[in-house]
Amino acid sequence: MNYVLLEPEDFAAEDRVRLAGRRLRHVREILKSAIGDEVRVGVINGKIGKGRIERVDEDSLEMSVLLDCLPPDPLPLRLVLALPRPKVLNRTIAAATSMGIREIDLINSWRVEKSYWKSPRLSAENLRMHSILGLEQAGDTVLPTIRLHRLFKPFVRDELPHIIHGRLALLAQPGEEIEAPRQILQPAVLAIGPEGGFIEREVETFREIGFTPVSLGARILRVETAVACLIGRLF
Amino acid sequence: MNYVLLEPEDFAAEDRVRLAGRRLRHVREILKSAIGDEVRVGVINGKIGKGRIERVDEDSLEMSVLLDCLPPDPLPLRLVLALPRPKVLNRTIAAATSMGIREIDLINSWRVEKSYWKSPRLSAENLRMHSILGLEQAGDTVLPTIRLHRLFKPFVRDELPHIIHGRLALLAQPGEEIEAPRQILQPAVLAIGPEGGFIEREVETFREIGFTPVSLGARILRVETAVACLIGRLF
Repeated sequence: MNYVLLEPEDFAAEDRVRLAGRRLRHVREILKSAIGDEVRVGVINGKIGKGRIERVDEDSLEMSVLLDCLPPDPLPLRLVLALPRPKVLNRTIAAATSMGIREIDLINSWRVEKSYWKSPRLSAENLRMHSILGLEQAGDTVLPTIRLHRLFKPFVRDELPHIIHGRLALLAQPGEEIEAPRQILQPAVLAIGPEGGFIEREVETFREIGFTPVSLGARILRVETAVACLIGRLF
Repeated sequence: MNYVLLEPEDFAAEDRVRLAGRRLRHVREILKSAIGDEVRVGVINGKIGKGRIERVDEDSLEMSVLLDCLPPDPLPLRLVLALPRPKVLNRTIAAATSMGIREIDLINSWRVEKSYWKSPRLSAENLRMHSILGLEQAGDTVLPTIRLHRLFKPFVRDELPHIIHGRLALLAQPGEEIEAPRQILQPAVLAIGPEGGFIEREVETFREIGFTPVSLGARILRVETAVACLIGRLF
């Protein structure tokens, strides 16, 4: 937590917040901040700035806040991701959010186990929590929009062609011969398959609607490593 | 585990291995492989290839193996990393190894808590285990060399100048004005600080011996995200 993210209900006055729970513990136990110390803050979907601790005890703390900077620019990238294993989902959402991705589509695929769609980690509350962890890490404030698409074809065939209109559409698929491009100067949509990749029929569907399958080399990377590596390369 | 990594002691004959424990469970429970099925294998510090399951029960399995391919090329990058929190160390080692980093120096820094150096995760056994997880992910076989440097100055002042000789030396530091370069065509050494970055005096020391401090933009990324993002950009 490099930034303490504030919610509208934290505000006791226009420039004063009261915090308890996880954020209080972080400020007291990790940052070890005391009265008069400054911490970096941001307000959800708003500006970033500084908070000055005015009062702190075991139950709550109060800060006066000055929110005077815009959060960093988003990445012009929409991520279309085959639903990862529940264990991997949280950290992938946090990592993608920390890098500035504002739109994430979680989709089905042949190699996505059906049980993954029943995971409690897909609750709006959990997805929001892990998005917030990514924002707190990066110093951003703007929550990503995360959409769930439990059927592959209706989304990829009917919706995705409109989404990629005017954008570079790339499908990261291990074993493809074309290398991922570098330093693209346009918005992009990046699709990443499940562990083991999309099956050939799915790759064909992506290709038909205008995606270019690209590879990152001979190594098979974990999804959050592959996303970070591709973002470093593309932008 | 995309590849099952074999140790010399697994071999019952030149082309036959017997496995138990973690790898047996993976083949039975995750891959759900049965007699006659093929799995991807590699031998530690050796070749990669295929294994054919000849016998499998609750206690062990036997495979005939054909090791006929070289593992993917390493990345021409040495990573100098301020010792991360123990919780972060395992996944950073696995991620770095999966991307092909063969030399990792874990160093001290002002903002590294002393207690981190006492973590059991720094044992050779644990570092090897998490390197293997990275190799199994990527389809590589060559273990990285991981060195511990508990004193900042003797390593950075006396050893590092020799290490960076003939290589591009970059220090990733949030807030620096120079952006990280792209697609470098030479070997490199990349230094990454602790959460919160190296302190100014440490940055000066790196600069004096020939490192260029570079930034990845306004966002503060987790160490394993930053490493992946920089690798995507540099290579």
